[in-house]
Amino acid sequence: MSGTMRQVVLRAYAKGTPKTGDFALETVPIPPPGPGQVLLRTIWLSLDPLIRFALDENLVTGRAHVGLGEVIYGGAVAEVVESQHPDYKPGEFVEGRTGWREYAAIDPKTVPLRKIDPALAPLSTALGVLGMPGQTAHCCMVEVGRVAAGETVVISAAAGAVGTLAGQIGKILGARVVGIAGGAEKCTALKAVGFDTCVDYKAPDYAAQLAAAVPEGIDAYIENVGGAVTGPVLPLLKYRARMVVCGFIAYYGVGREGPGPDKLPGFMRTIMSKGLEVRGFGGIVAAGPDALRDMAGWIQAGKLRYPETIVQGLDAAPAAFAGIFSGNRNVGKLLVKIGAA
Amino acid sequence: MSGTMRQVVLRAYAKGTPKTGDFALETVPIPPPGPGQVLLRTIWLSLDPLIRFALDENLVTGRAHVGLGEVIYGGAVAEVVESQHPDYKPGEFVEGRTGWREYAAIDPKTVPLRKIDPALAPLSTALGVLGMPGQTAHCCMVEVGRVAAGETVVISAAAGAVGTLAGQIGKILGARVVGIAGGAEKCTALKAVGFDTCVDYKAPDYAAQLAAAVPEGIDAYIENVGGAVTGPVLPLLKYRARMVVCGFIAYYGVGREGPGPDKLPGFMRTIMSKGLEVRGFGGIVAAGPDALRDMAGWIQAGKLRYPETIVQGLDAAPAAFAGIFSGNRNVGKLLVKIGAA
Repeated sequence: MSGTMRQVVLRAYAKGTPKTGDFALETVPIPPPGPGQVLLRTIWLSLDPLIRFALDENLVTGRAHVGLGEVIYGGAVAEVVESQHPDYKPGEFVEGRTGWREYAAIDPKTVPLRKIDPALAPLSTALGVLGMPGQTAHCCMVEVGRVAAGETVVISAAAGAVGTLAGQIGKILGARVVGIAGGAEKCTALKAVGFDTCVDYKAPDYAAQLAAAVPEGIDAYIENVGGAVTGPVLPLLKYRARMVVCGFIAYYGVGREGPGPDKLPGFMRTIMSKGLEVRGFGGIVAAGPDALRDMAGWIQAGKLRYPETIVQGLDAAPAAFAGIFSGNRNVGKLLVKIGAA
Repeated sequence: MSGTMRQVVLRAYAKGTPKTGDFALETVPIPPPGPGQVLLRTIWLSLDPLIRFALDENLVTGRAHVGLGEVIYGGAVAEVVESQHPDYKPGEFVEGRTGWREYAAIDPKTVPLRKIDPALAPLSTALGVLGMPGQTAHCCMVEVGRVAAGETVVISAAAGAVGTLAGQIGKILGARVVGIAGGAEKCTALKAVGFDTCVDYKAPDYAAQLAAAVPEGIDAYIENVGGAVTGPVLPLLKYRARMVVCGFIAYYGVGREGPGPDKLPGFMRTIMSKGLEVRGFGGIVAAGPDALRDMAGWIQAGKLRYPETIVQGLDAAPAAFAGIFSGNRNVGKLLVKIGAA
């Protein structure tokens, strides 16, 4: 296949909140697939907060680190357009971390690809409810959070891709679900998908509103933010409550050598004195296929909705990605439409 | 009983590390026991890091807060010398939080007292191996830490009252036990009580020494310090390792409104990405009596030693207590001898 394509590369390592100037849009020739490779045409690009880790000058996660001038790391759904690999045929659809570009020549041994059946669900769901965010939400609520009927669960960044799903899973499990999100619009949207209530962390009386929303205290807190959003949660946690660290976006702008969670006074004390259980999901999300079976079943049963916010075109990706870290208005999964399905 | 006694009161709220000038020694009349009270003669005073919380101007733990001019909060072993309570007789020995004073008139309804049999073990053990530190060490290793044979366990503040016991419990459970302590003398003492090895956090190559001491990584970390001591532990934790928050003495000088664990960069990231389980023991240490039965059995079987560091006289208590927070040379339980047994 000949012609040119666009791709987004790293112009400058991100300092704190990513800026659009950290990225550059380039036009380059469409690469020919080498032996064992497939040529992929990107359809959907996934904008995930964790990409931020890959953009630091100091290597934060070895596998994903992006150097200056390199294509930005990120998940996508793509169509196979040419194949030099026996397992992949043109016209098939795949999901994988193929990067911010319109076409990619990929060796599946280097970048794992998952085949997607477009008849089962919209292709975009492979990046959301039936992909990494769905697995994460399931893992945080079920495997790690062990949320049970009758419990009170609080979820921060509740309007995010993971949060919107986690809250609905909480309702399916029989819990009372309280979201924390920025702004009345997001809160309204979350109540529409089934959250019992939602507290706006931008409200001047946020802490009092949160306390009023959980009169019996909190059994499980799904942490996606950290810092000032999480501070008022700590005194409301019950003894031996669970805090599931799904994310901590308030600290994503902080490099490996920067300060730790210095916006969370009393964290260690609360862990100790309340017998808190704080757990991450790394290495546990491997229970993925089971999680996705649950999620697909819940969608079919009409119990799970998956809001999406869609941005058009690769050139819109940097601003949309930066917006994740500055309290944008998106609800649910943030996607960039790159090409026709 | 007539006459005078000495007591230590709070002269100034502690700021950061406690100083001897924060305390004042007073001579006051020995109080007569009122109805329902017992008059206690203090024999052993326990110097525990957690007393630091009670000395903050901002109320940190409601129950224990010490106001200006009030007697310092703290555990002791005492003899009943007069009794207006049917359950207590002169000549009996009790353990309870009766404060830094030579005599105390106590209502057991307000300050719980535990009777001690001096024939079973030395009286001082009621404040150490057969008291709160022993319960804490047991809880951190057994109930919360779930330490298993063949695992590698790292313990910070290993020379402290809890650490020395936790390490020996680890050996009893069949684990490989690595201590972290300040100075070669402490490390030598810890190896003498059975630690497999010990790393000096004051050594310039502390991080490298620690890494070399755990070639297969760390299954469980017993946290007693935080901050710069804990930083080099994080990258050595295995996936899904347990971190038991038994204490965090590096932050005890920080009031409720002060910064959080800002000396621990990457803490939240490690929790998330490694699926770490971080747990405190608050509300769990209630399993105390069982723990003390285990501890007593291990002492009788010659499997558990309980080093003590003894300071003489109430007037020595403030400096000895302050020393806990500035890397003193004590190994094991720190006690003040107040009166004859």
